[in-house]
Amino acid sequence: MTGIIRAGFLQFNPELGNVAGNIQKIEALLNGMGNADILVIPELPETGYNFRDYAHAFSLARELSRSVYLEFLVAQSRKRDVFIISGLAEKEGRDLYNTSVLVCPVRGLAGKYRKVHLFMNEKNIFRPGNLGFPVFDIGICKTAMLICFDWMFPEAWRIVALRGAELICHPSNLVLPFAQQAVPVHAMINRVFVVTANRTGTERGITFSGRSFISGPSGETLAMAAPQSDEVTLVELDLSLAHDKMITPLNHAFDDRMPEEYLPLSDPGQK
Amino acid sequence: MTGIIRAGFLQFNPELGNVAGNIQKIEALLNGMGNADILVIPELPETGYNFRDYAHAFSLARELSRSVYLEFLVAQSRKRDVFIISGLAEKEGRDLYNTSVLVCPVRGLAGKYRKVHLFMNEKNIFRPGNLGFPVFDIGICKTAMLICFDWMFPEAWRIVALRGAELICHPSNLVLPFAQQAVPVHAMINRVFVVTANRTGTERGITFSGRSFISGPSGETLAMAAPQSDEVTLVELDLSLAHDKMITPLNHAFDDRMPEEYLPLSDPGQK
Repeated sequence: MTGIIRAGFLQFNPELGNVAGNIQKIEALLNGMGNADILVIPELPETGYNFRDYAHAFSLARELSRSVYLEFLVAQSRKRDVFIISGLAEKEGRDLYNTSVLVCPVRGLAGKYRKVHLFMNEKNIFRPGNLGFPVFDIGICKTAMLICFDWMFPEAWRIVALRGAELICHPSNLVLPFAQQAVPVHAMINRVFVVTANRTGTERGITFSGRSFISGPSGETLAMAAPQSDEVTLVELDLSLAHDKMITPLNHAFDDRMPEEYLPLSDPGQK
Repeated sequence: MTGIIRAGFLQFNPELGNVAGNIQKIEALLNGMGNADILVIPELPETGYNFRDYAHAFSLARELSRSVYLEFLVAQSRKRDVFIISGLAEKEGRDLYNTSVLVCPVRGLAGKYRKVHLFMNEKNIFRPGNLGFPVFDIGICKTAMLICFDWMFPEAWRIVALRGAELICHPSNLVLPFAQQAVPVHAMINRVFVVTANRTGTERGITFSGRSFISGPSGETLAMAAPQSDEVTLVELDLSLAHDKMITPLNHAFDDRMPEEYLPLSDPGQK
């Protein structure tokens, strides 16, 4: 796509286990948001993050067809005419996934991604994502979702960019300060925009770092939230910049790749 | 390896076509260097960079067996007991390669890499590297070489790190300012050290950006040269930090990869 879109993040402090309260907090921020085309909400914003164990997470996660939070997102998306990308705790039978949903004003749930690279105790709670790295054409842009610790794996960013993503939505619960340095480089190398929506606050001993940010295709940081504020921040993104993969008149970010040299990257033995 | 090594870069301003003069400049800087284990010299330092055309480059490139510059490097490496990594213009029959050599105090020429990702007019002069991305165990560490514009391709950095490189030597002739932002992130994500040796000066309309730098496995910049100085800068590197791939007690930078999900990276159709 080549138009200008208004995209941004919602940053706030969810409370572990208080789904109704977290939805209220999100709605209050949406009420003050103004006009937006795409909004990204953090990882696991309805449940909180630091579950005691699998049973605790299981009690809070929902099948998408029974999720009060997803219903809320669909209603908000329609009411405000905005695409919403948000994390949520997804249940499928006995399996839990750390999921991100894409909600469309017209169609409702339009796509999902299940986090592939799990962080710390998530490994004891969630299954790794089994949907690969999908890209969605939502009319105003092509977009993909990656979640939090996926930031550490350049493979994921490259794959969705190769598949045409112009805007990567990145719901997060970041603890370490490294993503604010690394994600703009993923954006630069793939010449895409990224919206990283992070949470704030402290939960059972873990403090989240806030500083949600928006990265541009030259590696610039277009906006950054405060470490501990509740806020919605929107920026106008010129998608033609993500469309242009020429680095010099003779160099193309993707066509200059040498895939035949990259076989070790998909070799399970090369660890 | 787990020891501490003294590694660094030599930054200077080569003169296009003046091989004898460039060798003299390098030798003068080596004379003031002090004690080092590994030294990285920029890309194409003996010939200069901005050749008029293939014929011009062909007249300056040498077969390795007949290279006065390689002879010089072997003698300097032996004399000063230092591993030297340097770019050079390599001829093989009618083919030219933008090559980096690894020179060992005891064995002389111990390895080479031919630049895979060619920048701008290099495409009209050099063939793309046909040696893949080799890693060399040189006793004091495992090392690999990448050259200049390879910085734009995270695939290359990942492959040599997966193959065990602890220190990546990066001879460069950088023009754009982006590598100083991107390379520390390659170092962080792969938890390796990188020495980027850049050149200075202006050559037939191209100005090189200097600011050679050394990156650490937490994404930190350990040293950076001035934009236009002649200098050798050395830093002590604790290789145990590049050996430790644990990010958290439950997360390993490489074992947490999901290679089976990364097939699109080596698919020539996925461009």
